[in-house]
Amino acid sequence: MSRTQYTIGIDVGGTRTRVGLCDAEGSLIAQRKLRTLPEPEAMLPQIVGAIQECLGEQGVSWDDLVGIGLSVAGTVHVGTERVGKAPNLPQWEGFAPGEALQALLRDQGVRDDLPVVVDNDANAAAWGIARWEAPQLENLVYVTISTGIGGGIVIGRKLYHGGGGSAAEVGHMILKPGGPRCPCGKLGCWEALASGTAIAREGRARLGDPQITTPQVFQLAHEGNREAQKILDEVAEYLGLGFANLTELLDPETIFLGGGVMNEWEQLQTPALASYGRNARWRVPIRSTRLGDEVGLLGAAALVGDRD
Amino acid sequence: MSRTQYTIGIDVGGTRTRVGLCDAEGSLIAQRKLRTLPEPEAMLPQIVGAIQECLGEQGVSWDDLVGIGLSVAGTVHVGTERVGKAPNLPQWEGFAPGEALQALLRDQGVRDDLPVVVDNDANAAAWGIARWEAPQLENLVYVTISTGIGGGIVIGRKLYHGGGGSAAEVGHMILKPGGPRCPCGKLGCWEALASGTAIAREGRARLGDPQITTPQVFQLAHEGNREAQKILDEVAEYLGLGFANLTELLDPETIFLGGGVMNEWEQLQTPALASYGRNARWRVPIRSTRLGDEVGLLGAAALVGDRD
Repeated sequence: MSRTQYTIGIDVGGTRTRVGLCDAEGSLIAQRKLRTLPEPEAMLPQIVGAIQECLGEQGVSWDDLVGIGLSVAGTVHVGTERVGKAPNLPQWEGFAPGEALQALLRDQGVRDDLPVVVDNDANAAAWGIARWEAPQLENLVYVTISTGIGGGIVIGRKLYHGGGGSAAEVGHMILKPGGPRCPCGKLGCWEALASGTAIAREGRARLGDPQITTPQVFQLAHEGNREAQKILDEVAEYLGLGFANLTELLDPETIFLGGGVMNEWEQLQTPALASYGRNARWRVPIRSTRLGDEVGLLGAAALVGDRD
Repeated sequence: MSRTQYTIGIDVGGTRTRVGLCDAEGSLIAQRKLRTLPEPEAMLPQIVGAIQECLGEQGVSWDDLVGIGLSVAGTVHVGTERVGKAPNLPQWEGFAPGEALQALLRDQGVRDDLPVVVDNDANAAAWGIARWEAPQLENLVYVTISTGIGGGIVIGRKLYHGGGGSAAEVGHMILKPGGPRCPCGKLGCWEALASGTAIAREGRARLGDPQITTPQVFQLAHEGNREAQKILDEVAEYLGLGFANLTELLDPETIFLGGGVMNEWEQLQTPALASYGRNARWRVPIRSTRLGDEVGLLGAAALVGDRD
C-alpha cells in the first residue's frame, strides 16, 4: 500500500555538520559527516551532495522522501525560520536555510515540493526524544551539556518555542549573580558554571596548566587529583541546582541529558544527583538520552512530522 | 435564548477566603470575605453561606450557576484535585475541597450536579488573566509577589501543570546558592530574596527595629532612609534576575505581576526593570495585571471553563 517514508536530518553544528537518512521507525540507515563552512551558501551544495550519497547507499530515491529537517546551533525565528543568534555560526545569522535549500533542490531539478523544516538544534533533539524515545511522555525537558548548555522543552507533546521562538535557553538562566562571565555576555549563567567550557576554564586557572582541556580535567580527577575533583564537584553542584530549578518551574515527567560532557557522566552523576536532591523539593527522573550521539541527527529528522 | 451564565469563584488564602459571583463577561457582581478557618470541614458551610448571600444579592438562583472554581494557597494534585503542600493551610493538606463541597451541596439539597474545579491559587490567577485580560496571548507567565512568590504558566492557551501538577513554582527557583533560607527549607530561593517576607527580614536585621514590617521599609525608603532604599534596590535586583530567568526559559509573550508587593511597585519598578535589562538577553513586556486585587477571585471563577 503505502511506501516506506524516509526523512533526511541535517544537524548544522559550529564545527561539524551531519546529514542522515532516517526511516519511518526512527533509525538512521545512512549518514555523512561534513566540516561546517562559515558561509551557508557554500555549505548547502555539500549538504545536497551528502544527501545524494545517503540516498544512493540505501537505494532510496528523492521521491521517497517526505521531507527534510534541518537543525542549527543557534536560535531560529518561528514563522520565518531564519537563523537568529548563532555565536558559533555568525555568517548564518539572518539566513533562511530551509528556503535556500528548497530553492537549490528546485534549481537542480531534484524536487520542487520537498518540505524543509528548520529549528534550533536542542529543540530538535528534544523533539527527537519525545518522538522516538519517549512517545508515552506529555512533558519533558532536554538538556545538552557540552561546550555550552542548551535545551528543549516539549509540553503537551508539542515543541515549545515561546512567544518569540527563543524559549528553552536553559543554559542562560543565572544561577550565581556576579559569577563567571558567560560567552553570552551575562554573569553566572548555568552555562558559565557547569558546561565543558566552565570545566576547562577552572582547570586552566587552578591546575597549573594553561592549556588543559575538559577531558584532561576529568582524567586528572579520575587519577586522584584533588583540585580536579573539586572542580568537578563544583560543576556537579551547579548541574543539580539547574535541574532543581527546571523541576520547580516545569515539573517535567523526565529530564533527558545529552551532549559531550555526558560521556563523563559517570564522574558527575553521584554529586550532581545529590545536589539535585538538596535543591529540589521533589524529584523527577533524570537520565541520559538513549539516542546517544545520534540525538541531534534523529532530532533534526524528527522535525518533519507533528512537532507542533 | 440562553440564560446568562454565572460562576462562583472561591479563593482560599492562608488568612482570608473570598467568595465571588462572576458573570459571563468576567465581572464580579457580588463578593464576600471570610476569615479562613484552619479546618476545611468547618470552612465549607461558611463558604456555602457566602455563596447564598451573593446569589441572593443579585437575584441569581443556584440553577443559574454553571460551576464553582475553587483556588487554594497550596499545590493541588492534577486528577484527584486534593490539596498537596500547603504551608499556610496545614489542615487542608490531603483534603479534596471540590468533592467535599459537592457533597455538602448535595446533602443540603441545593444542587447535585454542580461542577467544582480546584487548582492552586497562582495557577488560577494566571488562567484568569489569560481568559479575561489577555485573550489574545498564547503564552504568558503570572508572578505574584506578596508574603511569598508564586506563579502560573499558560502555554498554548492552556494552564500548564507539569507532569505531577507542581509546575510554575517560580518562587522556589534558586537564584543565590547558599543564600537566605526560604520557608520551604531551601537556601537562596527567589521567594527568600525578593518577597515581602524578604523585605521585612532584611529590614529587621538592618534598620534597627526588630518589629519592622514590609510597608514600613517601603515608607522609610520613601522618606529617604538610605539603608531601607538599599534593601529595596537589592530586592529589585533579584526581581529583575528572576524575570530574566523566566524569559530565557519560557520566552512568554508577557509576564504579568500581582500580589501585595505590587502596591509598592512604583518604588521597585525602575531598578527591577534595569536589572531585568542587564540579566536578560531580550525583553518581554512586564506589567501589573489590570485585574488588580480581584485577580485571585476572578481566576478562581475562570477555572470553570476551558482551562486545559
